[in-house]
Amino acid sequence: MGLLIVGSIGLDTVETPFGKIEDALGGSATYISIASSYFTQSTNLVGVVGEDFGEKNIELFKSRKINLDGLQIIKGGKTFRWGGKYHNDMNNRDTLFTELNVFENFNPIIPERNRKDEFILLGNILPSLQLQVLEQVPNPDFIVCDTMNLWINIAYDDLLKVFSKVDALIINDSEAKMLAKESNLIKCARIIREMGPKYLVIKKGEHGALLFGDDFIFSAPAYPLETVFDPTGAGDTFAGAFTAYLYKTKNINKENLKRAVIYGSVMASFCVEKFSTKAIENLDDLKINKRFNEFLTMSKFEYD
Amino acid sequence: MGLLIVGSIGLDTVETPFGKIEDALGGSATYISIASSYFTQSTNLVGVVGEDFGEKNIELFKSRKINLDGLQIIKGGKTFRWGGKYHNDMNNRDTLFTELNVFENFNPIIPERNRKDEFILLGNILPSLQLQVLEQVPNPDFIVCDTMNLWINIAYDDLLKVFSKVDALIINDSEAKMLAKESNLIKCARIIREMGPKYLVIKKGEHGALLFGDDFIFSAPAYPLETVFDPTGAGDTFAGAFTAYLYKTKNINKENLKRAVIYGSVMASFCVEKFSTKAIENLDDLKINKRFNEFLTMSKFEYD
Repeated sequence: MGLLIVGSIGLDTVETPFGKIEDALGGSATYISIASSYFTQSTNLVGVVGEDFGEKNIELFKSRKINLDGLQIIKGGKTFRWGGKYHNDMNNRDTLFTELNVFENFNPIIPERNRKDEFILLGNILPSLQLQVLEQVPNPDFIVCDTMNLWINIAYDDLLKVFSKVDALIINDSEAKMLAKESNLIKCARIIREMGPKYLVIKKGEHGALLFGDDFIFSAPAYPLETVFDPTGAGDTFAGAFTAYLYKTKNINKENLKRAVIYGSVMASFCVEKFSTKAIENLDDLKINKRFNEFLTMSKFEYD
Repeated sequence: MGLLIVGSIGLDTVETPFGKIEDALGGSATYISIASSYFTQSTNLVGVVGEDFGEKNIELFKSRKINLDGLQIIKGGKTFRWGGKYHNDMNNRDTLFTELNVFENFNPIIPERNRKDEFILLGNILPSLQLQVLEQVPNPDFIVCDTMNLWINIAYDDLLKVFSKVDALIINDSEAKMLAKESNLIKCARIIREMGPKYLVIKKGEHGALLFGDDFIFSAPAYPLETVFDPTGAGDTFAGAFTAYLYKTKNINKENLKRAVIYGSVMASFCVEKFSTKAIENLDDLKINKRFNEFLTMSKFEYD
């Protein structure tokens, strides 16, 4: 029973025009599960870290009531590390280093009690690992998948296998164009949905997000931020909130999907306000719903 | 009494990946006034053409009940001509030629009966000509202004004088960034509104439009078009519908401004479906309101 989350967990060194942090909590599954924890207490994390991961980070997960049965802590192992630097416009970043460490031999082993989880969110990891997860959970109700340009380039066939099994795919606009080999996003959506996912979310950063279903398109605004402090993890945070809200509703319909996109946008808009997971560690329903209402106000108009 | 429109009127030669037309009806005031004509029968056009403009084009204006008292037809003169070619992604175009012809010595003379027009829409022309218009109409209720990158570059001081006098400015995102010397559109809006305009619309093409006022931001979606046949005039059409809807309501409030942005987007979405003004020549309230409702459906969500 719950929302199963699989992805990377790491320690990030990030430089932005506003400052620098070293070995701060990061990784796709980290952002996803923290975002999810505001919508359900059945957030089940599967991932791997080394002995150096730090008790403080474990405690953070626990304080958010994230279930860590599926967290492998490798004795003597070192945690996955990533270093990146953002340019002035914050839309582009350079990867400075990637140390896979214990993540190199990561085998996502789903604990017995999580094999009946109804929802799965496959965070951005190697598509073959995403497939391994799906093999262990035979009958989920709803599968959401995130991915990245790297896998489109080097693991396209596995990615197509994943797509054929998932219900919803979340990608950004440049990934959508790369995947569909097409520049018009509306055409992209048609092409990508033919690869499998019934629902597709295309994130457009400062331009908001588009949700595509069988008979509808939903256009969500972006939160009007004057300053993006650190964009790391915003996409993962979006995916976590999107999926966890749907899990909470237990009802995949158009209105819930639209709200899920807004909750994803809300949580991502918080995420970028501080380094690492700092801005999403201490939220509450009041803050989240206040921002949800700001999205509502910003996009609402009526026929006169 | 009415909405005074000043801008260029020309004959366009346009090449897109879908075909080519020669000497087709074009110009900012043309698109603006045709769009306006669906919202008010007090559309008062001021512009200049040559003797070669063509009776068919005059008849089109008349059929749309556009008042042509301010249209100067220069005997023996040649109409302004522009030629452009769009690239495959339709976001960029090359100007192939510009023949100013009678437009070179254009002096916008506002007919006596239009000097009491309550609304003015200054289409995209030389800022000094926009100022000339304002000098002749001493006391309008509401002034909307369009401009382009060329004037930001070569007539910046005059443009600032225009901005200090107008109520609303409509520009696209690249122009906003150029004008504000800033890449974040939210910051851009703050900087540009300090130049004068109380209301600012930033058009973002396939990403919709943003409207900024004193205490609100409105984010409008784009119509999900798979094919943009010819983008020429879309911005002018937006401005025409935006302003004419506000003129029709006689009430500048937040809800009307938001609807005006949607009507602008609706009319622009029609405009790009065919060459020249073809797609906006034969619309009706039913078609316009049907598309307005599609914008509503596309952006509507509710708190659960």
